[in-house]
Amino acid sequence: MIIAVIGDSSCSSEEAKLAETVGELLAQRGASIICGGLGGVMEAACRGAKAKGGLTVGILPGQDSSTANPWVDIPVVTGMGEARNAAVVRSAQAVIAVGGSYGTLSEIAYALKSKIPLIGLNTWSLSRDGREDHSIIRVQSASEAVDKAVSLAKRRKDYEIASQSLC
Amino acid sequence: MIIAVIGDSSCSSEEAKLAETVGELLAQRGASIICGGLGGVMEAACRGAKAKGGLTVGILPGQDSSTANPWVDIPVVTGMGEARNAAVVRSAQAVIAVGGSYGTLSEIAYALKSKIPLIGLNTWSLSRDGREDHSIIRVQSASEAVDKAVSLAKRRKDYEIASQSLC
Amino acid sequence: MIIAVIGDSSCSSEEAKLAETVGELLAQRGASIICGGLGGVMEAACRGAKAKGGLTVGILPGQDSSTANPWVDIPVVTGMGEARNAAVVRSAQAVIAVGGSYGTLSEIAYALKSKIPLIGLNTWSLSRDGREDHSIIRVQSASEAVDKAVSLAKRRKDYEIASQSLC
Amino acid sequence: MIIAVIGDSSCSSEEAKLAETVGELLAQRGASIICGGLGGVMEAACRGAKAKGGLTVGILPGQDSSTANPWVDIPVVTGMGEARNAAVVRSAQAVIAVGGSYGTLSEIAYALKSKIPLIGLNTWSLSRDGREDHSIIRVQSASEAVDKAVSLAKRRKDYEIASQSLC
Repeated sequence: MIIAVIGDSSCSSEEAKLAETVGELLAQRGASIICGGLGGVMEAACRGAKAKGGLTVGILPGQDSSTANPWVDIPVVTGMGEARNAAVVRSAQAVIAVGGSYGTLSEIAYALKSKIPLIGLNTWSLSRDGREDHSIIRVQSASEAVDKAVSLAKRRKDYEIASQSLC
Repeated sequence: MIIAVIGDSSCSSEEAKLAETVGELLAQRGASIICGGLGGVMEAACRGAKAKGGLTVGILPGQDSSTANPWVDIPVVTGMGEARNAAVVRSAQAVIAVGGSYGTLSEIAYALKSKIPLIGLNTWSLSRDGREDHSIIRVQSASEAVDKAVSLAKRRKDYEIASQSLC
Repeated sequence: MIIAVIGDSSCSSEEAKLAETVGELLAQRGASIICGGLGGVMEAACRGAKAKGGLTVGILPGQDSSTANPWVDIPVVTGMGEARNAAVVRSAQAVIAVGGSYGTLSEIAYALKSKIPLIGLNTWSLSRDGREDHSIIRVQSASEAVDKAVSLAKRRKDYEIASQSLC
Repeated sequence: MIIAVIGDSSCSSEEAKLAETVGELLAQRGASIICGGLGGVMEAACRGAKAKGGLTVGILPGQDSSTANPWVDIPVVTGMGEARNAAVVRSAQAVIAVGGSYGTLSEIAYALKSKIPLIGLNTWSLSRDGREDHSIIRVQSASEAVDKAVSLAKRRKDYEIASQSLC
């Protein structure tokens, strides 16, 4: 199971703490982490995961693996800039957003477009015509985020296997 | 001057009318149009532009130029799927969003990240921590959208030229 | 009709002269040019095309339209680095390679994979198991290159239109 | 250490055997494998690696992780088509090409452009102006390929660490 953790490369210490706990809990549940590979929320989540023996994948925007944070096991060097955001979320069975700025917003958009379950911790709210879009599953704590993500990712994985066996 | 028009490939007839008028007015102001090259809002904007002799560029997600709507002069065949959304907005000096679903939301996010002026007609609203993000310049009509886009794009173009001459 | 001209961003004066003549002749035949938008062969081809009133499109690797050479009418800002090479050739009905280094080689590979006619002027030769690959159509002059490209592009365009009308 | 194994999605049984042995030997040397994630050479290399307890990463062109071969541990879903080829080789410290068609040729081009060591087993030969390009390091066996790749990747990794510590 691979869960994406998305958020800004510069973040508050509260957000870093949240992301680190998310990383720890995901690793304890046996989930690998995929992220954008840089600092801030991405780094905190990877650090948490490595503290608990998890596997971490970083999908880097630049041309050089040395830009990965030190807790990335598998740096994927895309050289595709922010276009790599699509790959971060599509590779996951569920996505956890911690805070986030416009880059994170593009990842949220891609996840919702691809119908990948998206759990939000203190992140963007979206509305159209005065009505809120309720596609982001809002939670209040790292453990709630991980519980939701793992259970939805499991369901998605089962669904994918079922779809395949029908082909 | 190149202005991006973004919006959904399936849209209401009101949105199509809005997009078509945006296309017409942009062409009358001498601006070229760039878009995702497909149907709905993209097609309506291109049709409007061609009716007034404008130039239209379509940045296609797929591998085949035949997926472009019939009013695209220059189909750019990326084969990069939704990752092409980054290229649509970055190539423009200003962006006009008409309605839009999650694909459009990713383009809005990329535009705001790249600090490209973004004018919204009946499109997404964004908020964080209960506070609305006012980066999207909201307007009520096609003509207001085009006025804003052209004047901000002109300022941006001047700024770019000034930056270059300083290098 | 859109023809890609590919080649290195630093090139010999002979290659620049060849590319400029290719650009002139394409414009005189009514073909638009698409290229990587930078210097060297790309710049020479665009300069030639503009001297004869042609239209030029540059698919840029970087994040800034100011990197386009001064003869690009439509700079497409991909921010996707060398991954944009796929889009340069796929957007064309035929490709003319003038000299070229490894970046050009990747474009040759993409063109051959997509079965887009590829005309070579003093460019790479490819072989496997001691046998030369004859997919690159080798010519000796700019005018021969343009003749071949235009006639093959026309045939390809007819084929595409026929395929569409069958759908 | 991450080594890319590149080659065609349909290959001869000799090439599949070669690729499988490459995968086995890389895993025994402690190297992770990155590839395009599909069948043929990619699948054989992953199968070999998993037989010896290695870790495998597949950078998929499509939008669905179910297209990965069954021996991919980490499917990265780019949705970027053949543009993902740039990411496959850039993420590696060395590349081993086994046979290959035009897609592989684009990966060879990207590797040489990025100065990533490239070892070739029965793959493309390149020449310009009648002179062969000797950048591809040609070997005759899977074990020779792996020896070269591991030793060059190690040197490259040391170089990267040295470059970083100078910053």
